[in-house]
Amino acid sequence: LESSFPLRFKGGRVPLVLAGFGHVGKAFFGLVLDKGNYLKTRYGFDLNFRAVFKSDGGLISDAGITSENIPEETRHNLTRYPNWKPGARVEAALRKLKPGVFVECTPSDIRTGEPGYGHIRAALEAGWHVVTANKGPLVADLKGLRDLARRNHVFLEYSAATAAALPTLDLALYSLAGAEIQSIEGILNGTSNYILTRMGEGEDYAEALRQAQDKGIAEPNPELDVQGWDTAVKLLLIANSVLGLDLALEKIKVKGITRISPELLEKAKSDEKAVKLIGRLVRSAGRWKASVSPEIVDRSHPLFGVNGTNKGIHFVTDTMGGITVTGGKSDPRGAAAALLKDIIHIFALAHN
Amino acid sequence: LESSFPLRFKGGRVPLVLAGFGHVGKAFFGLVLDKGNYLKTRYGFDLNFRAVFKSDGGLISDAGITSENIPEETRHNLTRYPNWKPGARVEAALRKLKPGVFVECTPSDIRTGEPGYGHIRAALEAGWHVVTANKGPLVADLKGLRDLARRNHVFLEYSAATAAALPTLDLALYSLAGAEIQSIEGILNGTSNYILTRMGEGEDYAEALRQAQDKGIAEPNPELDVQGWDTAVKLLLIANSVLGLDLALEKIKVKGITRISPELLEKAKSDEKAVKLIGRLVRSAGRWKASVSPEIVDRSHPLFGVNGTNKGIHFVTDTMGGITVTGGKSDPRGAAAALLKDIIHIFALAHN
Repeated sequence: LESSFPLRFKGGRVPLVLAGFGHVGKAFFGLVLDKGNYLKTRYGFDLNFRAVFKSDGGLISDAGITSENIPEETRHNLTRYPNWKPGARVEAALRKLKPGVFVECTPSDIRTGEPGYGHIRAALEAGWHVVTANKGPLVADLKGLRDLARRNHVFLEYSAATAAALPTLDLALYSLAGAEIQSIEGILNGTSNYILTRMGEGEDYAEALRQAQDKGIAEPNPELDVQGWDTAVKLLLIANSVLGLDLALEKIKVKGITRISPELLEKAKSDEKAVKLIGRLVRSAGRWKASVSPEIVDRSHPLFGVNGTNKGIHFVTDTMGGITVTGGKSDPRGAAAALLKDIIHIFALAHN
Repeated sequence: LESSFPLRFKGGRVPLVLAGFGHVGKAFFGLVLDKGNYLKTRYGFDLNFRAVFKSDGGLISDAGITSENIPEETRHNLTRYPNWKPGARVEAALRKLKPGVFVECTPSDIRTGEPGYGHIRAALEAGWHVVTANKGPLVADLKGLRDLARRNHVFLEYSAATAAALPTLDLALYSLAGAEIQSIEGILNGTSNYILTRMGEGEDYAEALRQAQDKGIAEPNPELDVQGWDTAVKLLLIANSVLGLDLALEKIKVKGITRISPELLEKAKSDEKAVKLIGRLVRSAGRWKASVSPEIVDRSHPLFGVNGTNKGIHFVTDTMGGITVTGGKSDPRGAAAALLKDIIHIFALAHN
């Protein structure tokens, strides 16, 4: 027990299993290998990959997968190593190995939640702490997964799914502890904010979207982002985690940015205002209401200056006033850093 | 043990002793009395004042000082209650009572640290956790007090002394856990920022200061604020807590706002820029350098929009990019809310 963070832990190895080896999974894998010494020195623990899964199999190692036995140049070619097991299954490994932290980074399916939902359930049931960047399982059944974690005395953390390096849940649950939140507004999607920023500079929607796709900011299929659903999902997770609601995605009024006229943007700009896609939680007559919609905001708005791929969130509280946090990398490394942060929090809270 | 904040505690009463009954002490006392039920419901504990001290004595009660036995109208007239003990001493009470959390709010003396320094040492030695809004003892001997807390297995927390409701330490130590901080810039003093904001609107320094004093924003003796020392003290506490430095106040280059010419402000404004009193920590050739100085910042600066009594802090990190937090009430209630937050953190970290 030590005064203030960073807390140090009794130490020793923390077994990790990673599922999903896309952009975020690879970034997390690389981050932990690169930062191993820093993490040992500052926090006193040794994160040790016992298994890393892609969709078609897994690399499993009793000795751990470390920067000593995985050279940086070939770090992403998991299948070339002798321990690569084609067809190996995540759930089987979680049941067999000594529990530590399971890191879920498979692609997000916000309708079924799979395959992440099955992975996370198996992990929690087998006594693993879970950190996830995958929104699908959380949209499918946040309450069920949180209950399962509680029953198994383990943590389920998901900063990486709620705006990644921008600390949304942290701020609300930790920095505002003891204050009551009266409203929340956020710019929670970097892609749509980038497109709106370009449109504010004179581009039309199609051209701004094309530029975002050229730069790798927007995905080839940008529908979830530009139609506001990515913002709605993050808002849902924040509302249900922080305000204790049990909101369903269908209950959020969602309007995206695909039908904003250049004239509206031009007018906003000539009035020294800007159009932002705002996710909003307000209480009215004792009930919380959630919405996602493009809004015209003026210079005095706390999120006015959040441009490009940046994100931001603004809380109004009873005792601390208004508090705004902005920034945080919107890339896979930012999401990986959020996963790592959640692991550090778990050990600070569970193991001192 | 429960997934995510808010953590709930085994519960029961937490004895509190409060020393210092000025603006912040009174605000904290009122906040805890007013929020008693909310704190029980949300966090599961019952904060119970066992003693409240002014400079000339203390109100001490075995049953606890609660909203039931202290009516709101006469809450601040401690001396009218039968348990008021003229001349009672803080240290004696801390040694006698069953430890809980000691809340230190006596006036700050950044030269001697007293009387807070003696109070805090006595509290830590007797096994009390300590939260403080008083910068004096921390400037006098942060390292010694932290070591003493560690040896006694208790926490020493001081969010209220490092920009109060603006979460500076939280953000750095909790939300940025695992990332390495490369630089820190902050607008950390509401009074000087208010004066600079008014000066940017055309007032001269003397008039802006007078307005700040009329509104109760600046103290009758505003020297520590306008000469930059309050900013320097907060920067020192942040640097030594977050970056692990052992910086002394004399090593910080400090320049205040008393000699800024109206012409400079006018020029900044005509270029669409602004003058801000910036506390800055940067690493150069492997060494951290700390400074406080008025700077001209442009629209792209993350703290450009921080006006009036608002404060803000910007961190640049390796893996999470730049993250900025702004706002948070700059009044006694904001400081009281920060003290309460620290108490919740202590119980989250120490008692699960």
